[in-house]
Amino acid sequence: MSAASVSALLVTHLPDIRYLCGFTGSSAALAVTSKAARLYTDGRYRAQAADEVHAAKVEIVPASPAVTALLALAAQPAVASVAFEPGQVTLAEFDRWKSALPASKRRSFLKPIAPPLVEHLRWIKDADELALMRNAAALGDALFDQLLGFICPGITEIAVAAELEYQARLRGAEAMSFESIVASGPRSALPHGRATTAKLPKRGFLTLDFGVILQGYCSDMTRTICLGKPTPRERAAYEAVLEAQQAGIAAVKAGAVCGQVDEAARSVLRRAGMAEAFSHSTGHGVGLEIHESPRIAAKQTSTLAAGMVITIEPGVYFPGEFGLRIEDMVAVTRSGGEILTHSPTALIQL
Amino acid sequence: MSAASVSALLVTHLPDIRYLCGFTGSSAALAVTSKAARLYTDGRYRAQAADEVHAAKVEIVPASPAVTALLALAAQPAVASVAFEPGQVTLAEFDRWKSALPASKRRSFLKPIAPPLVEHLRWIKDADELALMRNAAALGDALFDQLLGFICPGITEIAVAAELEYQARLRGAEAMSFESIVASGPRSALPHGRATTAKLPKRGFLTLDFGVILQGYCSDMTRTICLGKPTPRERAAYEAVLEAQQAGIAAVKAGAVCGQVDEAARSVLRRAGMAEAFSHSTGHGVGLEIHESPRIAAKQTSTLAAGMVITIEPGVYFPGEFGLRIEDMVAVTRSGGEILTHSPTALIQL
Repeated sequence: MSAASVSALLVTHLPDIRYLCGFTGSSAALAVTSKAARLYTDGRYRAQAADEVHAAKVEIVPASPAVTALLALAAQPAVASVAFEPGQVTLAEFDRWKSALPASKRRSFLKPIAPPLVEHLRWIKDADELALMRNAAALGDALFDQLLGFICPGITEIAVAAELEYQARLRGAEAMSFESIVASGPRSALPHGRATTAKLPKRGFLTLDFGVILQGYCSDMTRTICLGKPTPRERAAYEAVLEAQQAGIAAVKAGAVCGQVDEAARSVLRRAGMAEAFSHSTGHGVGLEIHESPRIAAKQTSTLAAGMVITIEPGVYFPGEFGLRIEDMVAVTRSGGEILTHSPTALIQL
Repeated sequence: MSAASVSALLVTHLPDIRYLCGFTGSSAALAVTSKAARLYTDGRYRAQAADEVHAAKVEIVPASPAVTALLALAAQPAVASVAFEPGQVTLAEFDRWKSALPASKRRSFLKPIAPPLVEHLRWIKDADELALMRNAAALGDALFDQLLGFICPGITEIAVAAELEYQARLRGAEAMSFESIVASGPRSALPHGRATTAKLPKRGFLTLDFGVILQGYCSDMTRTICLGKPTPRERAAYEAVLEAQQAGIAAVKAGAVCGQVDEAARSVLRRAGMAEAFSHSTGHGVGLEIHESPRIAAKQTSTLAAGMVITIEPGVYFPGEFGLRIEDMVAVTRSGGEILTHSPTALIQL
């Protein structure tokens, strides 16, 4: 905060609040000054806040936690202005904040920070966070391994998703990090094919893209497996995507430009004549939220830093025929990348 | 739009987009003028958009859907300004929009709408939406009924949540509408007690608060059941909360003031000497999102209208001892309320 010349900070984005003080409830604001941190929440969370919050005093308030926090900051003579992250506050909320302030403070008391302060802190995972992310990724691996024994032709995509999510819960996941993608046969050509009542075919690809939330941290992985024997075209596409994925991972290291990591994967598929079929970006940051910065996409000029965790997930999609994607989570290190997901990437045939 | 003097509208909130044109992907913007509607999304959703979107033309774009949509609107001579919902756009996003516009349009081309246009439309459910919400509520009821045969002392709260969510998936739910609350014994005193590894006790309350998402619409219900025989104090608290809940429901009808519906429930608990223990508001709107307006809370001056769907969910919490809550979904009608959740509210003893 002192490097950013910020004397007081009002944090309202819940993952940021969790990151800074541990609170996991659904309504809160955190006010931070150089002297103190105060977490404002409502009566539903009295016991939970007392239990979870560290390094901040808890205030249970009847009205909007953010407005209450703002007014408490405004009442402190030492607080000349309050910084906030403009990517986390809507125009309507900002107007409510301004209206709540005394007229003398409406003009310049609230200061949007650029670049984002807490978001940037969160990009770089410390050792404790990396340990939690390894655990989340390992749970994903264990679930995939278990699911291989469950998958067979004739059961529905929804039954696969239900089994996956049931086992995730029993093994301690708080939730899935996003709606599980279970896309079989021609539906594998949908990059985001949610599980449906479609039955798994005797022959064809099956794409599983899922993640768990474990102790707050998200995992994310994709594997495409083959029911029955792959056609030569399916096998060639799989080999090309796998090569692209490996090239993407090989390009990961601190200092690498995100656009170049994307290009490392994309150029493999371009050479294989599948540039058009790779219709999305190569990856994204992941942590307390499933989609964080940086974006690993064409022309992205931001650079990777040690401690970031990103996904590398090229895929190709041939509408009406088949599609596939292979995704791992990778922690950026000074010399390369540590792959956090360990499920095999060679084509599995069931 | 014409009543609000809006010539063009840029919609970016995903539930609003789903509401208006049916698209359920995770990245999109919808541009609406008096002449046409265009849905902008990325290559991952080409097939899904073609399948889902009605009454709008689909544009697959490589960059930000919102910025692309905005620039397309700005290029139309007939579009003098573009309205947007200020409660759904962050300051950072708004700045990106402004920077993308030609200099001549940065000052007054973008117009925040007040009051919100799409949000207000969504408050009032039409007959088709009410049918979907009845289905979602009925699935919640069926799951609760099934769960009563599963619950027994000694199993963990997580096992209860896992079974609930597994059955929900198998019966067609896309997801749960929020992290299921399974709070047993003294943990029932936590209004938002997530399922933990705590084992269900032989004797004590168990609060289940959960919802499913079925065809996009959220259900929400809470029941507190008793393992073993309730103590006289537990029984008295239960009877008071049930009476409060029934009084809240009885106060529901088109034209009723939200604060008065809250007071109808709250006054029962005040008379029972439990005003302090009822530490949250009485309810909230529900629909495509689990928490929508209106808030049914003290001093809320907004009024109910026919077609709104709200929850009525008073509860009392005695830290370290026990707590309980009873929640139904209620559709507001001209003459009263139609209860959508039909599980029994009389105390169930297992």
